Amino acid sequence: MLSKSQISLLTSLQHKKFRREHGLFMVEGYKSITEFADSDYQIHTIYHTPDTAPKLLKLSRKINFQEISLNDLQKISALKSPADAIATVNIPQWGGLNYTTLKNKFSLVLDGVQDPGNMGTIIRTADWFGISTIICSEDSVDAYNPKVVQATMGSLARVNVTYTNLPGLISVAKLPVFGALLNGENIYTTNFGTEGLIIMGNEGNGIRPDIQQLVTKAITIPRVGRAESLNVAIATAICCSQLAAKSYK
Amino acid sequence: MLSKSQISLLTSLQHKKFRREHGLFMVEGYKSITEFADSDYQIHTIYHTPDTAPKLLKLSRKINFQEISLNDLQKISALKSPADAIATVNIPQWGGLNYTTLKNKFSLVLDGVQDPGNMGTIIRTADWFGISTIICSEDSVDAYNPKVVQATMGSLARVNVTYTNLPGLISVAKLPVFGALLNGENIYTTNFGTEGLIIMGNEGNGIRPDIQQLVTKAITIPRVGRAESLNVAIATAICCSQLAAKSYK
Repeated sequence: MLSKSQISLLTSLQHKKFRREHGLFMVEGYKSITEFADSDYQIHTIYHTPDTAPKLLKLSRKINFQEISLNDLQKISALKSPADAIATVNIPQWGGLNYTTLKNKFSLVLDGVQDPGNMGTIIRTADWFGISTIICSEDSVDAYNPKVVQATMGSLARVNVTYTNLPGLISVAKLPVFGALLNGENIYTTNFGTEGLIIMGNEGNGIRPDIQQLVTKAITIPRVGRAESLNVAIATAICCSQLAAKSYK
Repeated sequence: MLSKSQISLLTSLQHKKFRREHGLFMVEGYKSITEFADSDYQIHTIYHTPDTAPKLLKLSRKINFQEISLNDLQKISALKSPADAIATVNIPQWGGLNYTTLKNKFSLVLDGVQDPGNMGTIIRTADWFGISTIICSEDSVDAYNPKVVQATMGSLARVNVTYTNLPGLISVAKLPVFGALLNGENIYTTNFGTEGLIIMGNEGNGIRPDIQQLVTKAITIPRVGRAESLNVAIATAICCSQLAAKSYK
């Protein structure tokens, strides 16, 4: 049984302000929780219904467990159809981005991506293609938003998502800067080399002009049909796919 | 001003049963409405607030216009943030799929895709890549669902989406059948030839066994990292992208 103040704290984690205040975010569903338990993240407490207890006991004993009713689970869930268990997980304290870790690989840079579903899908796709770092502008949607966490399907446990001032990062990183723009080089014939930042823009407005100026190679997915644009998660996936494709040429 | 019975009819169009009964679906937002007005679809009525009237008058005069209050617009909208106008559009009466139109090109086949956002994004992506036909199993989410229409960003006006018995279609079509499966041929080295059906499966369960048996070439997007799977709209986009990529090799 959850107290009123516990329910109040847990539901407050749906808002970024309170996630930062408490240093916690929520992960819903047994499967995703196990992926966080197998990662560097620290799980604080797992709230589970009587039915899910046996499965959860296989996880590390360092985690707090609290059995709650299905009714309480529904109260604290951010989902329309709540899963079998909900965990609170500590938001990691990053010591800032180490630029040398960006060398000899590709990282994604997101300039103002707003939609939680898009952010979550981008994190999941990056995980599939072995991209370990996503750098976001400070106004991008929070990766610990419950809808983002849900859409990553556990991949948030494995991909580093950091928020920073993008112009500052790009100038310090000294890497090739690819930007998904109109009228850029055909992505199917682009030579990506061996390292770089791939910048994707906001859903409605694309990459901001001051960031566009820092792009060293504009890239474009050629349009065959008539749609005006591609969804940003789709465009990101096609970029990741082209990076992967070159290993097979 | 809308009457109670008008509001009741319009809100009922959020449900498939009533869309079929009335032969109508709803398109929200001026921009999407203009794309349907420029297509073979027949717009029935455009409901607009006083502010949007001047813009809408540029459209064909054969359409009914009804000025309504913002309050009424909010009542009939299926969106959290309603747009500036809402149109009812006639659901076309397809005369069945003409198999000969599937020759010498690629078409998408969706086996039980359930999520409206995924369906809408697939339609938008197909439109970008010039794929004109999407064939869905009868239990796939309805393309005229308001969330699907919204996610297509107008592309539904240009892509034919039909529902049929898939095993029947596949046997009659006599085309190469590519299926997105695990342990298939590497999509980056697959020779797709010049025509075929590309089958994508349900979000949780993939392609059904009886449809898998009809696949002539299983294809796979090789995994580099650790995510367990890709979102179906993402996987579809990567397939479409690889079909487009071969023109540039």
